[in-house]
Amino acid sequence: MSEQITPGPPLSQYARAGVDRNRAEGAIRRVAQLAATTHLPSLMAGIGPFAAVWRLPDGLPPGTTLVSSTDSVGTKTKIAVAVGRHHGIGRDIVNHCVNDVLTTGATPLFFLDYFATGRIDAGVLEQIAEGMAAACREAGCSLVGGETAEMPGVYGIGDYDLAGFLVGTTTVDRLLGPQLVRPGDILLGIRSSGLHTNGYTLVRHLVAERELDYSVILPGTDLPLGELLLAPHRSYLNAVLSLRSLGDVHALAHITGGGIPENLPRVLPEEVAAVIETSRWEVPSLFSALQRLGDISEEEMWATFNMGIGMICVVAPATADQALSSSSSEVVAIGEIVDRQGRARVVLR
Amino acid sequence: MSEQITPGPPLSQYARAGVDRNRAEGAIRRVAQLAATTHLPSLMAGIGPFAAVWRLPDGLPPGTTLVSSTDSVGTKTKIAVAVGRHHGIGRDIVNHCVNDVLTTGATPLFFLDYFATGRIDAGVLEQIAEGMAAACREAGCSLVGGETAEMPGVYGIGDYDLAGFLVGTTTVDRLLGPQLVRPGDILLGIRSSGLHTNGYTLVRHLVAERELDYSVILPGTDLPLGELLLAPHRSYLNAVLSLRSLGDVHALAHITGGGIPENLPRVLPEEVAAVIETSRWEVPSLFSALQRLGDISEEEMWATFNMGIGMICVVAPATADQALSSSSSEVVAIGEIVDRQGRARVVLR
Repeated sequence: MSEQITPGPPLSQYARAGVDRNRAEGAIRRVAQLAATTHLPSLMAGIGPFAAVWRLPDGLPPGTTLVSSTDSVGTKTKIAVAVGRHHGIGRDIVNHCVNDVLTTGATPLFFLDYFATGRIDAGVLEQIAEGMAAACREAGCSLVGGETAEMPGVYGIGDYDLAGFLVGTTTVDRLLGPQLVRPGDILLGIRSSGLHTNGYTLVRHLVAERELDYSVILPGTDLPLGELLLAPHRSYLNAVLSLRSLGDVHALAHITGGGIPENLPRVLPEEVAAVIETSRWEVPSLFSALQRLGDISEEEMWATFNMGIGMICVVAPATADQALSSSSSEVVAIGEIVDRQGRARVVLR
Repeated sequence: MSEQITPGPPLSQYARAGVDRNRAEGAIRRVAQLAATTHLPSLMAGIGPFAAVWRLPDGLPPGTTLVSSTDSVGTKTKIAVAVGRHHGIGRDIVNHCVNDVLTTGATPLFFLDYFATGRIDAGVLEQIAEGMAAACREAGCSLVGGETAEMPGVYGIGDYDLAGFLVGTTTVDRLLGPQLVRPGDILLGIRSSGLHTNGYTLVRHLVAERELDYSVILPGTDLPLGELLLAPHRSYLNAVLSLRSLGDVHALAHITGGGIPENLPRVLPEEVAAVIETSRWEVPSLFSALQRLGDISEEEMWATFNMGIGMICVVAPATADQALSSSSSEVVAIGEIVDRQGRARVVLR
């Protein structure tokens, strides 16, 4: 076949067709400036241009662990693009990762992001970087690096994807998890700040099917749908740290895709079940409004959305008493751990 | 506006429209099995379902650092999709990250991946996971976690993106970088295994513009274009470790997007320049064939592709002598570090 190929006009312009370095570099420089606002002294500046170098303190306690997690914000980006507001997406990705790492009992050290798009829009990237930097500062976590990719043909011009990677630390004797959970433990739910980063594919289908606009105010809600949907995924770092200061926290389940029925069992040992009294808290109006709009079954709702509880803490009864008497209404006793005895892992009633 | 909305037929089927959990879970289980083939004892199994827990050895040497990097394989995925071969893409992402972390002098500890697509194809995901697991085993690195996302509407059905995050470690006294580079240092180039993961947007434009098929054999090459383009990004871990065992390595530049002119300066101090003798190695035939095909300028070629050298090692002269007498033809002396004296940071001649 090779004989048939004849060189044509120069194609040099194509090297810049995908990536306009001047345009992209201004935006990426701004991201670096924002990232610098999060930097702690452990990050060794000026070293490692291809990778971030983080110095561990000398004399770490025995049993020190590194806890890592990666996540993305999923199709919530499509709603941000439709509404034209991206600041919260930056918070979403950091806090999603913070919460996942937190479930082991670890606190954050550093974060890296991966942003990919069809064509870099400096304004969008800056909003996202501002959100990431703010959430990192709040979590006491350094934004140490990232990759910003233009991938024309994979992403549409305005579309983007955002993933994150977080490393935290704790010691073996502070690790939380199934090994600590026992019958009689109390389930404390901490309120979510909206849909967080899950259920958006269903919501988008629903909005398309009903031919709605994100500016609609659904019955029973008081803000435009787009605004409610873009509420940032909150961080549970401070709530969990204050809970741990009160007593014995055994396990934490971050309620993400698959809702309570899929996420709570991930921190339960085989021989126990969790019984949740769904009447203990009011499901926020956004969830009810979406359910009515799509005539979605109860089962589907609970298997898709967090339904108002974004983190479930499995705690000793005495710790639950302390937490409920001392803390704000954001912590609710929602159920308990029982012997399984043939029951499903999670019973919603 | 809310009055205009009336509920329609149930939309429950849409919760599964984006993600078919049964289909996806089989594939994700297979990824987990492959990941398990890379696991080292430091990974604490059965703990941390939302995040991976890695136990550091007690009594770490003072000055221990964590080195982290994130990358993606860019639009090379589009060529994998066109050709229908994905195994190498898994190796690409791991080795890209290994090489970036390696530039600081660190060796890998653990890796996480982020795979996103319009609709999970179990066969594609498995090929990628096999490639990632193989590259992780070769690097002595554990594949500890990942996120697999279905994002219909962001990605086309067959399209996907793959990013990776790697954490490695070294000690402060073993760190490489600009601070060690001085005039008289020798530049050793280590051969690349193809385009690695850069320049694919240009190549795709070129293939489209010339109306070629990836099965074409370009003049001067001996394999179908698609096969040459999909050659996996190699790891420089063993080559660099053996070089360091010979003597003084000062800095390492991973030649990625932007080629030698953009990447080598990243590890040079302000007061020096690098003079590269491009006649010292033969640019591989694939690069020359692409240049002829697109009538691409020399400058554009060097600013886009690695041109046959994937890692440049800045070493002491005695170390260069040792390396060149003892090692295979994959290491080539390609230039030296000189006083800058008004020169550009990198002089290609």
